[in-house]
Amino acid sequence: MLHPGTHQPLNPSDLAPLFPDELIRQELTEERFIDIPDEVRDVYELWRPTPLIRAKRLEKLLGTPAKIYYKYEGTSPAGSHKGNTAVPQAWYNAAAGVKNVVTETGAGQWGSALSFASTLFGLNCEVWQVRASYDQKPYRRLMMETWGAKVHPSPSDVTEAGRRLLAADPSSPGSLGMAISEAVEVAATNADTKYCLGSVLNHVLLHQTVIGEECLEQLAAIGDTPDVVIGCTGGGSNFGGLAFPFMREKLAGRMNPQFKAVEPAACPTLTKGVYAYDYGDTAGLTPLMKMHTLGHDFVPDPIHAGGLRYHGMAPLISHVYELGFMEAMSIQQTECFEAALQFARTEGIIPAPEPTHAIAAAIREALECKRTGEEKVILIAMCGHGHFDLAAYDRYLRGDMIDLSHSAEKLKESLGAIPKV
Amino acid sequence: MLHPGTHQPLNPSDLAPLFPDELIRQELTEERFIDIPDEVRDVYELWRPTPLIRAKRLEKLLGTPAKIYYKYEGTSPAGSHKGNTAVPQAWYNAAAGVKNVVTETGAGQWGSALSFASTLFGLNCEVWQVRASYDQKPYRRLMMETWGAKVHPSPSDVTEAGRRLLAADPSSPGSLGMAISEAVEVAATNADTKYCLGSVLNHVLLHQTVIGEECLEQLAAIGDTPDVVIGCTGGGSNFGGLAFPFMREKLAGRMNPQFKAVEPAACPTLTKGVYAYDYGDTAGLTPLMKMHTLGHDFVPDPIHAGGLRYHGMAPLISHVYELGFMEAMSIQQTECFEAALQFARTEGIIPAPEPTHAIAAAIREALECKRTGEEKVILIAMCGHGHFDLAAYDRYLRGDMIDLSHSAEKLKESLGAIPKV
Repeated sequence: MLHPGTHQPLNPSDLAPLFPDELIRQELTEERFIDIPDEVRDVYELWRPTPLIRAKRLEKLLGTPAKIYYKYEGTSPAGSHKGNTAVPQAWYNAAAGVKNVVTETGAGQWGSALSFASTLFGLNCEVWQVRASYDQKPYRRLMMETWGAKVHPSPSDVTEAGRRLLAADPSSPGSLGMAISEAVEVAATNADTKYCLGSVLNHVLLHQTVIGEECLEQLAAIGDTPDVVIGCTGGGSNFGGLAFPFMREKLAGRMNPQFKAVEPAACPTLTKGVYAYDYGDTAGLTPLMKMHTLGHDFVPDPIHAGGLRYHGMAPLISHVYELGFMEAMSIQQTECFEAALQFARTEGIIPAPEPTHAIAAAIREALECKRTGEEKVILIAMCGHGHFDLAAYDRYLRGDMIDLSHSAEKLKESLGAIPKV
Repeated sequence: MLHPGTHQPLNPSDLAPLFPDELIRQELTEERFIDIPDEVRDVYELWRPTPLIRAKRLEKLLGTPAKIYYKYEGTSPAGSHKGNTAVPQAWYNAAAGVKNVVTETGAGQWGSALSFASTLFGLNCEVWQVRASYDQKPYRRLMMETWGAKVHPSPSDVTEAGRRLLAADPSSPGSLGMAISEAVEVAATNADTKYCLGSVLNHVLLHQTVIGEECLEQLAAIGDTPDVVIGCTGGGSNFGGLAFPFMREKLAGRMNPQFKAVEPAACPTLTKGVYAYDYGDTAGLTPLMKMHTLGHDFVPDPIHAGGLRYHGMAPLISHVYELGFMEAMSIQQTECFEAALQFARTEGIIPAPEPTHAIAAAIREALECKRTGEEKVILIAMCGHGHFDLAAYDRYLRGDMIDLSHSAEKLKESLGAIPKV
């Protein structure tokens, strides 16, 4: 990481206003394994281990010789994989004597996971939610409030960054990058307040590997190994959480899966971004990270998969992508929802808009197996349920959903604004 | 059961227009155990066994010496215990060659569970949803449509019963009793269509005992036996599903729990109803059942726990209540939501409005243990999550929720309309 002011390599102590020491240590560690504290395991027991399910009815519908498995994270109280990192983040903050945590959220999966985790450990939680989602999806906000969190629409008038953004555009719909600027500002300027991030950072991806570690054991018990591991990528934590333990096994020669990241056509960070140092937020308050980025002021079109609307990609995912350990592709949202309906009507679980991208890619793969006769084992990261996204399904069912791509001109502009370091 | 026209004991064949043979057999069986078909087990694997969780953080908040456990059914795809009977009902219908199933739903838990189960077995599903809920909670309807069901607001103009009700009151908000009349009429008049019910009947409670059977094994593995088993009662299937296997164990002398049913003050079927033969629906199309009832045309005030707004009680529950095997109590909804908030903010799971009644009663019990020093083991039936009920939480948090009781006059009238047989 580089310091946002000097562009010089960051000193770990520069992160101290934002994170407790243990999370800074985990962010920078070179250890391969870090034990999960008992207090975190105790909460994980509410929903872990999560089910690994063979999609037999979907296989039958497709008429494919492939075996399709999905690792389903939607049984967590807030409904997605985000709880896997919200709980340890809340715990390490509480253990360090922190009283308040702040964060940003888009559609609300991350904000609700952190609200859930915070109340269990007696932390106050404040969330800046992208205004478009705050207005359109009141139920995620009500969920956070039920858990005792305070939720602001972003841009808000309670931060300097928010006021500047509102002055420039009073009706701004907000973005994840803007909301991060607001939450980081509050943490940086209040001694008893720390910041939590729901993806991108090393310690977040580390916490999420509980998914892949569990899944390795579950598949071993069945006696299968995957030929393809597929996950959607926004910031990268869901994909990395499932894929990294399998990558370790591949590098050790114990299996040989392909890895496929699927991003929305409206926010194609890996497939159309550049690999460069860039800010994690719009205002340039966060450290610069070496990552695939569309530019820190890229504002993606309003697709339903709000959790995938982020300009950057986790440095760890970016790194392994550069090393050629994985592939990436982008898919339009109507294909994703068509796949989601096939999935919901055979498997019985209604996916969040984000993992519909992984499901669509898996269906492509399974149909290719039907053509070739290959009996591949396909593993899908099914990172959450769509209980708060049924308005998107309604639009699809009524034929109102349209595909959204990025504008080439907008992308050129935002790529041009990436700092030269 | 008595025939609705003649008031004479029903012949099993009288039920044939409504149910497939195997479900009629189960309704009338004297066998103690019936095997779960492999096809049903296969779907149950999506979410069963459900977790049995010790509410350690709630115990700590209350400062009680009691141990509180809850059996949580909210991990099912439709979010409640209703899937336990929706899946076998759909399966037995599909196995009998039925093409279409119809049902009613209030808040939507049952309708969504049957929509889910129907799509897995290739059945068409049509649901009559109480109009007040259809209008106020579009997300449950969208969930049913996502699974491919067709949803009508009830009263509707597509049935004779609905048209009669609309003629009497064009702006009727509907009720479960009215919606049952509509669905039963459609099944009775279409040869390829059967009716499914989400509670009350013997075969429904039988299917739900999977909850209690599982829970007995889970508690045995921990080494605890319950002193009190608490569940909410609307039609009785959630309570019976958990409690009946424990009642068997009590009668066999292997444990000695108390059983407490909790109903809403607005619909106090066990505590204020009479034990008599009454219709299951408003129009008098269903057989008469010997049950506790407030009268088949009793319309409960619009409390948030839509699933508990039913005038009758399962004959099996009514029977054991008369035998003195269980107790009943009623609680107002603001106390229930206060309890729900305490639960959500310590345990991390947001309950549906229905099980908040059981949680409120369990908290009363735990606080009584605090007073007396008793270390009771309390077991709660936590039958579903509140993802689609956050507007109710919002009302409570804003101080807008009011208590609703039944009107003594209205009750006197509806009790007077119970047929004399």
